[in-house]
Amino acid sequence: MSQSKVSVAVVGATGAVGREMLAVLAERGFPVSELRPLASKRSAGSEIEYDDRTHTVEELTPSAFEGIDIALFSAGGDISKEFAPHAVAAGAVVIDNSSAFRMDDAVPLTVPEVNADELRDHMQGLAPKQGTIIANPNCSTIQLAVALKPLHDRAGLKRVVVSTYQSVSGAGQKGMDELWEQTVQLLNQKAITPNKFPHQIAFNCLPHIDVFLENGYTKEEMKVVLESRKILGLPELPITCTAVRVPVFACHSESVNVETERPLSPEEARELLTESPGIVVLDAPGDNQYPMNFKLAGSDATYVGRIRKDESVAHGLNMWVVADNLRKGAALNAVQIAEIVAQERNYILQ
Amino acid sequence: MSQSKVSVAVVGATGAVGREMLAVLAERGFPVSELRPLASKRSAGSEIEYDDRTHTVEELTPSAFEGIDIALFSAGGDISKEFAPHAVAAGAVVIDNSSAFRMDDAVPLTVPEVNADELRDHMQGLAPKQGTIIANPNCSTIQLAVALKPLHDRAGLKRVVVSTYQSVSGAGQKGMDELWEQTVQLLNQKAITPNKFPHQIAFNCLPHIDVFLENGYTKEEMKVVLESRKILGLPELPITCTAVRVPVFACHSESVNVETERPLSPEEARELLTESPGIVVLDAPGDNQYPMNFKLAGSDATYVGRIRKDESVAHGLNMWVVADNLRKGAALNAVQIAEIVAQERNYILQ
Repeated sequence: MSQSKVSVAVVGATGAVGREMLAVLAERGFPVSELRPLASKRSAGSEIEYDDRTHTVEELTPSAFEGIDIALFSAGGDISKEFAPHAVAAGAVVIDNSSAFRMDDAVPLTVPEVNADELRDHMQGLAPKQGTIIANPNCSTIQLAVALKPLHDRAGLKRVVVSTYQSVSGAGQKGMDELWEQTVQLLNQKAITPNKFPHQIAFNCLPHIDVFLENGYTKEEMKVVLESRKILGLPELPITCTAVRVPVFACHSESVNVETERPLSPEEARELLTESPGIVVLDAPGDNQYPMNFKLAGSDATYVGRIRKDESVAHGLNMWVVADNLRKGAALNAVQIAEIVAQERNYILQ
Repeated sequence: MSQSKVSVAVVGATGAVGREMLAVLAERGFPVSELRPLASKRSAGSEIEYDDRTHTVEELTPSAFEGIDIALFSAGGDISKEFAPHAVAAGAVVIDNSSAFRMDDAVPLTVPEVNADELRDHMQGLAPKQGTIIANPNCSTIQLAVALKPLHDRAGLKRVVVSTYQSVSGAGQKGMDELWEQTVQLLNQKAITPNKFPHQIAFNCLPHIDVFLENGYTKEEMKVVLESRKILGLPELPITCTAVRVPVFACHSESVNVETERPLSPEEARELLTESPGIVVLDAPGDNQYPMNFKLAGSDATYVGRIRKDESVAHGLNMWVVADNLRKGAALNAVQIAEIVAQERNYILQ
């Protein structure tokens, strides 16, 4: 029942997250026996690099998953909804970066540092070679959950108020191109025309990510609320979010206000977070050291700084949380999930 | 005891706020009999435009306030501390934009829409022609107080959590120049050297405005906390702030989470704010309408949008508050104070 290597499909291999997935698979030495990059008909035939070899992108079709062990999806919710069932039918474990299945009770929503056990239980409940879907959470939610989990375990989360400062890379390559182009146009006193974003993004803060829902929140804001509750296993957690796109290329930053049930000093929180998996504490204001998006692009950890006591409640903390949304917020988290799947399936990891 | 016109000194007339003060005085037809622009020795002799006339900037000296009725100061705390007493001794009403006197119990800290009465009482307690100091609050605090006051009067503020998205114009002309220059350099793949800001500001969020204090907060964050309490007359108000510089040229944006003592629906809040002085509600998410800094540069109002119920507390609201920090956050608020002073001193306003 074991095999030494894993056949991996990457759906959306030419997108910003897809390319990052390929990079992370190679960096971490994931034991890929066959790599099958898949994309829309438009991108099929193009070439991508993986592990110093050139691969031709194949067209995504219902039969494209034959012989695939793990299929990493990052091509939007509609593609996932249409093609993930075919991958599952072919016996693949789908790790889906879209929001299509995240809130499905039967689907694990996994941040390995937080709830790897649930994923392991899920995998152990399947027959060998049985396909399944694992959901990769929303980018802003992943870094938040990583930072909140140790605080919850120690002091009990009572309420969380989050305001985000999200980079344009969360909107993919087109988002990054649009910030660059609009910036050049505005510096040259030229008019700009929004395309990927609903309004100008260069030199602007846009309090609007994803679509608006009936309750006045954006879908992005409700992802943070609902997915955080599911990942942390706290279905009633009082949490609210304001999600804002800011004119930076990489990494999401978050101003996080945490109220805990029990006392937790900034010193204790700092020590606790320093010892927690996937977290780097960068918190030396005297030396002007705190996490900043421009420095952390390409990094793997969730960075936490500006940890200080919030005197406006009995037990409160403020903190500033930054991570690369394409890596920990998407590709890296997906590959970490793939590593757990590979362990559970007795594939031999290097 | 009345005079038809007012002699006005502007200290720091060549700075970003000083120039905006001159523009606002002219726009609002403030009855200036004599304008005396004052600045450091370095800027003395330079020329500025006011009301279609050219004025030569004079050097700021202890004796520069002879015959001045109102002195608008915006040249930093050290200049205010040194020269405001001379202006007061000369019988001038100092309206000071620095933080030097804001928390002094004897000094009114005024946002006209919020606590004009306190300023009137203060003026009425003075002898005719007696000099005094009135403090103009911190930019991010002014717009926050304008938005919070009607909510407090209706439903009672219980707790406020603020995260700011502040423009580089808050750091003056040098801040704006630095964002422009760094942006051009980075787009041209050149290295940048931070000067006005502690780190790169182009394409970066900098969770650090003003200096760090012993409690881990920045001075900017504590200004929001302490000044809001004083302006709103709520010395114990539970309020906390995270202040972040973002790469935009104009206007400060704020993600404001408000907990009230009594119920207040988003609909009621929207109606209430719409009727409140100095506020424009811009809140039609279905039409992608919400306040955005790039559109609101040069405007006078405090703009509020994204008003929605926060379900994480009994009575909670989230909102997004934007204002031009050089105008309502500085120059306009100072001139509004000057208008009240002029009324109280029986100067005849146009």
